[in-house]
Amino acid sequence: MNTEIREILEQVEKGALSVDDALLAIKKEPFVELGYAKIDMQRKTRQGAAEVIYGAGKTAEQIAGISKAMMEAGQDVILITRMSPEKAEIVGKEVPLKYHKDAGIGIIGELPVPKVSGKIVVATGGTSDVPVAEEAALTAEVLGNEVVRLYDVGVAGLHRLLAHMDEIMSAQVIIAIAGMEGALASVIGGLADCPVIAVPTSVGYGASFQGLSALLSMLNSCASGVSVVNIDNGFGAGYLASMMNHMKK
Amino acid sequence: MNTEIREILEQVEKGALSVDDALLAIKKEPFVELGYAKIDMQRKTRQGAAEVIYGAGKTAEQIAGISKAMMEAGQDVILITRMSPEKAEIVGKEVPLKYHKDAGIGIIGELPVPKVSGKIVVATGGTSDVPVAEEAALTAEVLGNEVVRLYDVGVAGLHRLLAHMDEIMSAQVIIAIAGMEGALASVIGGLADCPVIAVPTSVGYGASFQGLSALLSMLNSCASGVSVVNIDNGFGAGYLASMMNHMKK
Amino acid sequence: MNTEIREILEQVEKGALSVDDALLAIKKEPFVELGYAKIDMQRKTRQGAAEVIYGAGKTAEQIAGISKAMMEAGQDVILITRMSPEKAEIVGKEVPLKYHKDAGIGIIGELPVPKVSGKIVVATGGTSDVPVAEEAALTAEVLGNEVVRLYDVGVAGLHRLLAHMDEIMSAQVIIAIAGMEGALASVIGGLADCPVIAVPTSVGYGASFQGLSALLSMLNSCASGVSVVNIDNGFGAGYLASMMNHMKK
Amino acid sequence: MNTEIREILEQVEKGALSVDDALLAIKKEPFVELGYAKIDMQRKTRQGAAEVIYGAGKTAEQIAGISKAMMEAGQDVILITRMSPEKAEIVGKEVPLKYHKDAGIGIIGELPVPKVSGKIVVATGGTSDVPVAEEAALTAEVLGNEVVRLYDVGVAGLHRLLAHMDEIMSAQVIIAIAGMEGALASVIGGLADCPVIAVPTSVGYGASFQGLSALLSMLNSCASGVSVVNIDNGFGAGYLASMMNHMKK
Amino acid sequence: MNTEIREILEQVEKGALSVDDALLAIKKEPFVELGYAKIDMQRKTRQGAAEVIYGAGKTAEQIAGISKAMMEAGQDVILITRMSPEKAEIVGKEVPLKYHKDAGIGIIGELPVPKVSGKIVVATGGTSDVPVAEEAALTAEVLGNEVVRLYDVGVAGLHRLLAHMDEIMSAQVIIAIAGMEGALASVIGGLADCPVIAVPTSVGYGASFQGLSALLSMLNSCASGVSVVNIDNGFGAGYLASMMNHMKK
Amino acid sequence: MNTEIREILEQVEKGALSVDDALLAIKKEPFVELGYAKIDMQRKTRQGAAEVIYGAGKTAEQIAGISKAMMEAGQDVILITRMSPEKAEIVGKEVPLKYHKDAGIGIIGELPVPKVSGKIVVATGGTSDVPVAEEAALTAEVLGNEVVRLYDVGVAGLHRLLAHMDEIMSAQVIIAIAGMEGALASVIGGLADCPVIAVPTSVGYGASFQGLSALLSMLNSCASGVSVVNIDNGFGAGYLASMMNHMKK
Amino acid sequence: MNTEIREILEQVEKGALSVDDALLAIKKEPFVELGYAKIDMQRKTRQGAAEVIYGAGKTAEQIAGISKAMMEAGQDVILITRMSPEKAEIVGKEVPLKYHKDAGIGIIGELPVPKVSGKIVVATGGTSDVPVAEEAALTAEVLGNEVVRLYDVGVAGLHRLLAHMDEIMSAQVIIAIAGMEGALASVIGGLADCPVIAVPTSVGYGASFQGLSALLSMLNSCASGVSVVNIDNGFGAGYLASMMNHMKK
Amino acid sequence: MNTEIREILEQVEKGALSVDDALLAIKKEPFVELGYAKIDMQRKTRQGAAEVIYGAGKTAEQIAGISKAMMEAGQDVILITRMSPEKAEIVGKEVPLKYHKDAGIGIIGELPVPKVSGKIVVATGGTSDVPVAEEAALTAEVLGNEVVRLYDVGVAGLHRLLAHMDEIMSAQVIIAIAGMEGALASVIGGLADCPVIAVPTSVGYGASFQGLSALLSMLNSCASGVSVVNIDNGFGAGYLASMMNHMKK
Repeated sequence: MNTEIREILEQVEKGALSVDDALLAIKKEPFVELGYAKIDMQRKTRQGAAEVIYGAGKTAEQIAGISKAMMEAGQDVILITRMSPEKAEIVGKEVPLKYHKDAGIGIIGELPVPKVSGKIVVATGGTSDVPVAEEAALTAEVLGNEVVRLYDVGVAGLHRLLAHMDEIMSAQVIIAIAGMEGALASVIGGLADCPVIAVPTSVGYGASFQGLSALLSMLNSCASGVSVVNIDNGFGAGYLASMMNHMKK
Repeated sequence: MNTEIREILEQVEKGALSVDDALLAIKKEPFVELGYAKIDMQRKTRQGAAEVIYGAGKTAEQIAGISKAMMEAGQDVILITRMSPEKAEIVGKEVPLKYHKDAGIGIIGELPVPKVSGKIVVATGGTSDVPVAEEAALTAEVLGNEVVRLYDVGVAGLHRLLAHMDEIMSAQVIIAIAGMEGALASVIGGLADCPVIAVPTSVGYGASFQGLSALLSMLNSCASGVSVVNIDNGFGAGYLASMMNHMKK
Repeated sequence: MNTEIREILEQVEKGALSVDDALLAIKKEPFVELGYAKIDMQRKTRQGAAEVIYGAGKTAEQIAGISKAMMEAGQDVILITRMSPEKAEIVGKEVPLKYHKDAGIGIIGELPVPKVSGKIVVATGGTSDVPVAEEAALTAEVLGNEVVRLYDVGVAGLHRLLAHMDEIMSAQVIIAIAGMEGALASVIGGLADCPVIAVPTSVGYGASFQGLSALLSMLNSCASGVSVVNIDNGFGAGYLASMMNHMKK
Repeated sequence: MNTEIREILEQVEKGALSVDDALLAIKKEPFVELGYAKIDMQRKTRQGAAEVIYGAGKTAEQIAGISKAMMEAGQDVILITRMSPEKAEIVGKEVPLKYHKDAGIGIIGELPVPKVSGKIVVATGGTSDVPVAEEAALTAEVLGNEVVRLYDVGVAGLHRLLAHMDEIMSAQVIIAIAGMEGALASVIGGLADCPVIAVPTSVGYGASFQGLSALLSMLNSCASGVSVVNIDNGFGAGYLASMMNHMKK
Repeated sequence: MNTEIREILEQVEKGALSVDDALLAIKKEPFVELGYAKIDMQRKTRQGAAEVIYGAGKTAEQIAGISKAMMEAGQDVILITRMSPEKAEIVGKEVPLKYHKDAGIGIIGELPVPKVSGKIVVATGGTSDVPVAEEAALTAEVLGNEVVRLYDVGVAGLHRLLAHMDEIMSAQVIIAIAGMEGALASVIGGLADCPVIAVPTSVGYGASFQGLSALLSMLNSCASGVSVVNIDNGFGAGYLASMMNHMKK
Repeated sequence: MNTEIREILEQVEKGALSVDDALLAIKKEPFVELGYAKIDMQRKTRQGAAEVIYGAGKTAEQIAGISKAMMEAGQDVILITRMSPEKAEIVGKEVPLKYHKDAGIGIIGELPVPKVSGKIVVATGGTSDVPVAEEAALTAEVLGNEVVRLYDVGVAGLHRLLAHMDEIMSAQVIIAIAGMEGALASVIGGLADCPVIAVPTSVGYGASFQGLSALLSMLNSCASGVSVVNIDNGFGAGYLASMMNHMKK
Repeated sequence: MNTEIREILEQVEKGALSVDDALLAIKKEPFVELGYAKIDMQRKTRQGAAEVIYGAGKTAEQIAGISKAMMEAGQDVILITRMSPEKAEIVGKEVPLKYHKDAGIGIIGELPVPKVSGKIVVATGGTSDVPVAEEAALTAEVLGNEVVRLYDVGVAGLHRLLAHMDEIMSAQVIIAIAGMEGALASVIGGLADCPVIAVPTSVGYGASFQGLSALLSMLNSCASGVSVVNIDNGFGAGYLASMMNHMKK
Repeated sequence: MNTEIREILEQVEKGALSVDDALLAIKKEPFVELGYAKIDMQRKTRQGAAEVIYGAGKTAEQIAGISKAMMEAGQDVILITRMSPEKAEIVGKEVPLKYHKDAGIGIIGELPVPKVSGKIVVATGGTSDVPVAEEAALTAEVLGNEVVRLYDVGVAGLHRLLAHMDEIMSAQVIIAIAGMEGALASVIGGLADCPVIAVPTSVGYGASFQGLSALLSMLNSCASGVSVVNIDNGFGAGYLASMMNHMKK
């Protein structure tokens, strides 16, 4: 903000801009000038030089349209979440799209080379949790992070998880994704000494109540350093993990 | 049953009993004659030569009275569950009582020497789960079982649990007791190859909802061989474990 | 485990195996060598010389592929659970499959002849509970157990249940399966003197809330010796019952 | 209604009443004239010549005052529900009160001799349900019914219930009262061929959730002829049972 | 029972029956001798000379088969509940069926002429509750009752209900059926002086939570004489109402 | 009322009406005479000279039929809510219908010119809430109100909302519509000094539990002046807002 | 805003303000410039010339202190809600307090004479709802409204409510307060043609679940014009009703 | 691992180790070899050179004992959470304790000087949330962080929050603590561009359901970068915030 208003002010000072025009410029996009650009959520995701389009509830045409506008505006990488294969096919005809069917994610442009050294580990309890995990992992990659995938390392076969102690101990952030009893977050939280973002999934049946069981489990984790996002919210976890991995020092 | 009705019939045959009296005798306790004595739940707990008194909702006087009657009837060991210290003090004046304050359990008589070789492991996630664990452990001991206690081996500090792999691998039955996220049952279920009885406890706060979180976790365990009893039901778990440990071959 | 690593060690001792090759052998299946074979869930199901494939979430091709690999590895009996008729048809073209439509279960190979004498009784409240019951019963049979089916013996017609007192009294383990009010577990638990595994089903409507009513009922059973698995979890009950029926003495 | 308005109309016709006065008379107590006196709930409880005072939330002084007013108005029998021992002591100094501590019920006057031949059976699963049962039983007795009490006949010891088949088969109405798993209603509903009023109680712990488990069980009863009242609502069950027992023919 | 066992005893007394044979005879069908034939639920529904088939979960072929068997056994009237139009069409080709699409009910034979004078009023809050109401009404009619239908008399338009005070005041039993806020039961319960059977329906949206709102409302009715059956359980209400209307005097 | 009964009485006085006929007249429509015509809910919506048809659960034919009858009766504007596009197409062939697909609303006739000066602001958290918002907005417009739409002003991008402070501060009533965390109602409630009607929507996923999350949020709003209607109840909010905007002074 | 930023810009133009100082000035209090002082919620309650202190969670000393400060600042009327009798006694020693025990409300100063003609009706289902009702009524009176109290007019005795049709029909706003089944809101909503604010109360037992039953009922009201506030939130209802009664025209 | 097993193998090869001893060695401490000493959770909290004692469920004597032992072991700073004033008084006699009553926290030793430059903002919706906030803030301070407290900045008075934009924009991590509708997390999440840890509190009444409302709100936050810990879990939030603030680069 400072820069932009400073420029306006400097132009006013120089006489290059009238007070009225300056006022208009400042009023025009009030939140931008007044520092509210920070408030602009879109800007945040520019961390990794990427823009995000939430595909659910948008038509293929709308997604394609927004994508094209962004590309024309010079955007290198665009992440489209929660997009069905049907929509992806239509969108793919309009823009150069790499579609990840499992995650329901489409990516335009090349994944950026990470500029931070920390790794984000994405771990799942079972293979059924993979779609949510891929949403998290691809989100983090698009935002400029190196991601290590540890899938199907649920606690009922503890050796599978323990075989990956190295990855767990060297992670900057871990995303623990599980349905059913959701114990993975606690076990990883107890093993690791970095923040763990727990993502309950709606995987399970009967008394899993569409993810409620895993959600409650994770909220009640007796391990420190664990926090929780909404059921199936892979994007949210990937985004937050990237934010942590890019934290200013 | 056969014996009793046979006797009545033989007496009728001999003329030693009138038809009316025989009819009355058969009608009087119909379920007893017909073999329904088996239905008598009290008899079950005789497995370990012990009787059980559920103390909750009974006055100290009632507990003392029942205990005395049982002792006079020749009962060697009596287990009294859910008895407050206040009641225990009063009961203890009437009968020779060993009171376990943590578990709220009183025992009259000596713990029987186990006649079965299998061991029952009672494991808890934290120290707050110990009262429920002691209810389970003492119940199993009173019913004639050897019990191994593994307390405070919750999954957030996995090494504490893994340090006891020997006990876990050599158990006949394991009772896994935990509040909060209840992940202990799944982890033990994945490690052990014997039945695991999971007991959710009401330990926790906030979104543990008085044990609901642990209960759902345990019901959704992805480990095979795990079943669940009611929240805080240490007695039920101890009783069932003893039943399994004494299974007929 | 001991045997396998012992063999490797003996070969090293004899000089028949180099240290490097031994290390490789131990590393190859790391969990086996380190005693984690015990942790290996797959081994557990070898009780009855059977392997289990959880069909839900796997494609017919994947199921067929895994089955063939197992068969080639010498596996005699393979149990496939939660497999739709459509998948079963495809799988059946690749491997010799007996498909049980009601239970959604496919079996490759002959049911093993039980080596233990105990019987597992599988009882249901109604006919709508039969699919879950068949999942339990077939699982137990594949794992080498004799199963007695008592279907449609719900408590609203108590005579139907009481007519089977003999089966109930002579069971080693009973699986009580019911939806709606789930009272069957309590009534059987009160009649029998063996462990009862209660399986709530999602059968019912309105305030049954997809099995919640039966689940709560069963957890609150006032009968001793009753424990509960997840809603509709026939496989879990059958597996646990087999585990109990094969308990080491 | 007809009579009263007819009289007014006739007087108007005769000229004995002005239109204005007639209008006023009709407007004055519109619900009375229109027959809405029937709507008066108080009248209903006169079935058994008794009045009911709901004691909860009333002070001892208020209860005593209302009681005296009713007595002065010629009321023979007065039932006071949900009254604490403390209040009962105060009330008892003002009016001749028989207080039933278990049920929290006070009765002024003699229990009426039943004028109907049908019997109301009040059955409970356990002894902890007795307070609710006594509220039901005393309510029914005060309203002029013969009551048969079958306490502690829970389904986990089925023989206790079956021993009372005669009472069950000869009842006009049965009130089935149980906490925990609430299975009593279904079992009795299956045995009896009269209406069963199910009363869930808050007796239990853990997953009984203060009566929710029993409530859901009873609502899902697979036995026909069962309906349910609120948790712990002994009065409501006793009142409804009396209403059924006094049904007009 | 007495008779049969008496005969056996007399034959033993006479020497006409050996003790062993007598014992066998008594053991053979214990529930029959003990009068438990009464336990047969099917018999109950013979009240109105009708049999009931619960159609849900049965194939059209099964329904047709059972119907034919019943007809051959001399059954005049058969009620089939929860049968889809598709099944009804198939069944209708095999047996003479009158199908009520709204209620999902099929009836074979003529509705019996009521032998009791009492009327059952079936009232609904809205027109969307009519399918449940018709299930209740037809059930009651098939069981030999005169039914008065008061549909769409919900409390938000109180005049619609009050316009039917005559029917309400003269009913023997009232079935009050409503979704959404379920207030109808309380209002009718306050107006009427006969038993009210409340049926919550799953009609509504949002916070009606598939009938939970109406269910809780009805359970908490402050009107006396109201009891509740499961959500959408029209059959249960109709059956119970008929039972009340046919109560022995 | 007075007028009508007075007329009857005067006719009786004059002898122009017999007592019997007068009695019948008074009895016939008791609620009408007594002023209960006011009770007629339909009349209320005449505020804005519009009639409302709730389309859900009605066939296209029924909707068309009712519409035509209303038009013939001289109704200028008719609002049809919750009508699917399929039904709208059929109805549109019979009557001149403007169909709003997003809101599922059809309007017959011209929107009335508002006669009150107050404005109703309809604000939504996201674009997915627009269908509910349009139901509210069109309802208010049909009832004769000026509506200001502020869509997609959710609290996660506060600047979007703050940019509309003028509209918020000058509203007569505000309808705040949001799913997910439903915070919009609190934030607007804190900013505005007019009544805020909060409408939770079922928009969201996972722990939004079909609108429960937003509903609870809104009920717990710490801002004064906020009240809540049912989940997705746009019509109810629009109707209530119009009622407030037309309040008598 | 324009003025202030214009001034800054003009000073920059003139060289009277450096660019850095101008930038700081613009950044410094962004929300102030934007007029967000309007956001002050406190101002709202000045409607009725009264200030409100929420007593819960404040000590008697704090309440007294705030009260004195307000009085010294010239405040005529002060409303203190949720204040216990113990606190009231202490506060009463420091300031001239009128304490309403039932409502837990203290008032300093005289109730203002209403300046608006509309009446607010406060109706309750039972006498147990009166504390919540008094909180609502006193709040409305303190804010300058005429309040009509209709207590104990619950729907189970409909005549009690109908006897007050005049008050209901002439109200500007109605606050309907009820626990248990909460039907009062629907019935009043159906009768009245003004906005109805529904307040569920925690009055009830068993399945009322501390007000949940009444809350759901009211949210699902089929009457138009009804909206709901939090359980037991008398203040919120009184405040909103006053806001409606004072709506600008 | 390789090294160690290689050594064992080499010794076996050399004959320096018997096969049995080698086998035992491999089995004995499998988790130790794998470096699981790292698993020690306690070590984590050494970040800030502090140890933590969870006071709930420990006696004053136990707390004092553990504290002394830690002090003797050279621990400079010790944090004791969830300790009542009564316990604090006793503990304070044994060790030099600074007790923070509001937060229920005791601290032994001096707060460390932060070695990281980032600031942790702790914001609350109301003053009732302060105890939880202080638990979070003191935890973070004890672990070596600079904490900025922004209390009572709830969204119903948005200006209070917006007045602190500088602190919000310059935070490294923000802890947003709120009860009731929990909207604070979303609003802050939308304003800030750092991770937000949301802590729902049990503050509120009625439909806040002890924090459930705030919990669901926060889980459904539409702002990115927000994750949630358990209800009232101030310690967990403070600990996680510190972990983020100390993240390795």
